[in-house]
Amino acid sequence: MSTSGVDTVCVIGTGLIGGSLALALKRAGFCRQIIGAGRTEQTLIRAVELGVIDSYDTQIANAVVGADIVVVCVPLGAMHAAFEQINAGKDQDIVVTDAGSAKQSVIRDAESIFGAGYPNFVPGHPIAGTERSGVGAAFAELYRQRRVILTPTEDTSTAAVDRVRAMWEAAGASVDTMSAEHHDLVLAGTSHLPHLLAFGLVDCLNNLEDIDEIFCFAAGGFRDFTRIASSDPVMWRDICLSNREQVMAMMKRYRDEMEKMYRALEEYDGEKLKEVFERAKRVRDAFCG
Amino acid sequence: MSTSGVDTVCVIGTGLIGGSLALALKRAGFCRQIIGAGRTEQTLIRAVELGVIDSYDTQIANAVVGADIVVVCVPLGAMHAAFEQINAGKDQDIVVTDAGSAKQSVIRDAESIFGAGYPNFVPGHPIAGTERSGVGAAFAELYRQRRVILTPTEDTSTAAVDRVRAMWEAAGASVDTMSAEHHDLVLAGTSHLPHLLAFGLVDCLNNLEDIDEIFCFAAGGFRDFTRIASSDPVMWRDICLSNREQVMAMMKRYRDEMEKMYRALEEYDGEKLKEVFERAKRVRDAFCG
Repeated sequence: MSTSGVDTVCVIGTGLIGGSLALALKRAGFCRQIIGAGRTEQTLIRAVELGVIDSYDTQIANAVVGADIVVVCVPLGAMHAAFEQINAGKDQDIVVTDAGSAKQSVIRDAESIFGAGYPNFVPGHPIAGTERSGVGAAFAELYRQRRVILTPTEDTSTAAVDRVRAMWEAAGASVDTMSAEHHDLVLAGTSHLPHLLAFGLVDCLNNLEDIDEIFCFAAGGFRDFTRIASSDPVMWRDICLSNREQVMAMMKRYRDEMEKMYRALEEYDGEKLKEVFERAKRVRDAFCG
Repeated sequence: MSTSGVDTVCVIGTGLIGGSLALALKRAGFCRQIIGAGRTEQTLIRAVELGVIDSYDTQIANAVVGADIVVVCVPLGAMHAAFEQINAGKDQDIVVTDAGSAKQSVIRDAESIFGAGYPNFVPGHPIAGTERSGVGAAFAELYRQRRVILTPTEDTSTAAVDRVRAMWEAAGASVDTMSAEHHDLVLAGTSHLPHLLAFGLVDCLNNLEDIDEIFCFAAGGFRDFTRIASSDPVMWRDICLSNREQVMAMMKRYRDEMEKMYRALEEYDGEKLKEVFERAKRVRDAFCG
């Protein structure tokens, strides 16, 4: 198995994530052709029209035949079914990877289909996206200067990891590897919890019976803060359930943090508040420049 | 008292808020001159250099003499002291207004200095700002197509309200009036709570001992969500303390909302999560377009 000379990439799920990857790989000349697969033929037709994929098959088992890499870009809740259909069509040499936002659950799904110890499945997660979704939102630059995390198990072959790494690097991303456990903890904090907090804030304010026009008086800060509450609800339900334990652990830690602030307010402790705000500002300014 | 033919506006505190107002009023030709005042002479010198104000006086009591409108743009914690100094210099005809983010506390401060029933104090709040601060961040367009809320008491004169309204409209804003109580509730939800949540999230993640590099894997959504955590800590301490009761009430409602989500996760209730996410997305898409 070589990382150069890739002939065919099969992308299952041609929405924002899969579609943008396909566009980036085409632009980079990473492979000769990209075949799309998915449940909804309309989406696949549109993906061909937009030049995102070269051809498609609505039967995943057919689409994967002869592919060098299969990239599964479906919601986490649809991962298991996609793996079943891949398994019906693939031979043992095909490298399979995914783009799911939680990794332990995907590894469980993969092992239940491909068998524990299967060397050619490379769990992956591109840290990129927008609040929009669908093939119409796809663009070739989505992964440029973004990070992709691969979480190989001890059974994953180095050659398979290298092939997937080369693919993401061709799309413009830099690739890190870590354990699935660590990935799920980090993402629970930096992505899954913030999404829950944003969805929760909008819902909470919307439920205030006494203030109909509350959103009219929201400024730019509120718009930025709640942007992620415009994300796809089904995708986020799946992510929260798939990474349930880490998300719940983060929610607990966050609740404790907010309790600390509530007590500071209760006790009129301005020093305590300022201390937290100053530390947060310093940290945030340091990592966001 | 007329709303046209304004000669002199005195801006106390020439940071982002006061400086941007001064620039906007100059561009609109609203008045003949703008006099700045504040504690730090360096800032005032810089404001003159940048063309934000025409002249300055470090003594507020001197700066307000002869002004048609005095706009107090200092942190909420400095409001009381600023009113004291204004009172030492002003005559009864001067219209005084402010730009504080909480209104009941400012009204208490004003009444304790100017006396209850004083007709020429107009409590105000421009719903605009950025996470930056200081005169160097000021720009004339800050208030364009933004809302300003005025919260006159039953003692405030209509003529004074009209003069302040004309000033903000000249700066490009649209002006609403409401009660101070209602203002403080609305702003607790759309601004003060989100700031606390963002500061709290960054601090919470920063306190995780086991993940040093957590912020390296944060995507664009996290950057947007936490932008307001780069805001000025002293200003936000003052706002939280000044609007303490409404902020605490909002924190409680929010805690209940998040408990609901936590229970949904605990019970593996995907339908419940999806329902909240869908409602939040619908509401957010509707008001942010």
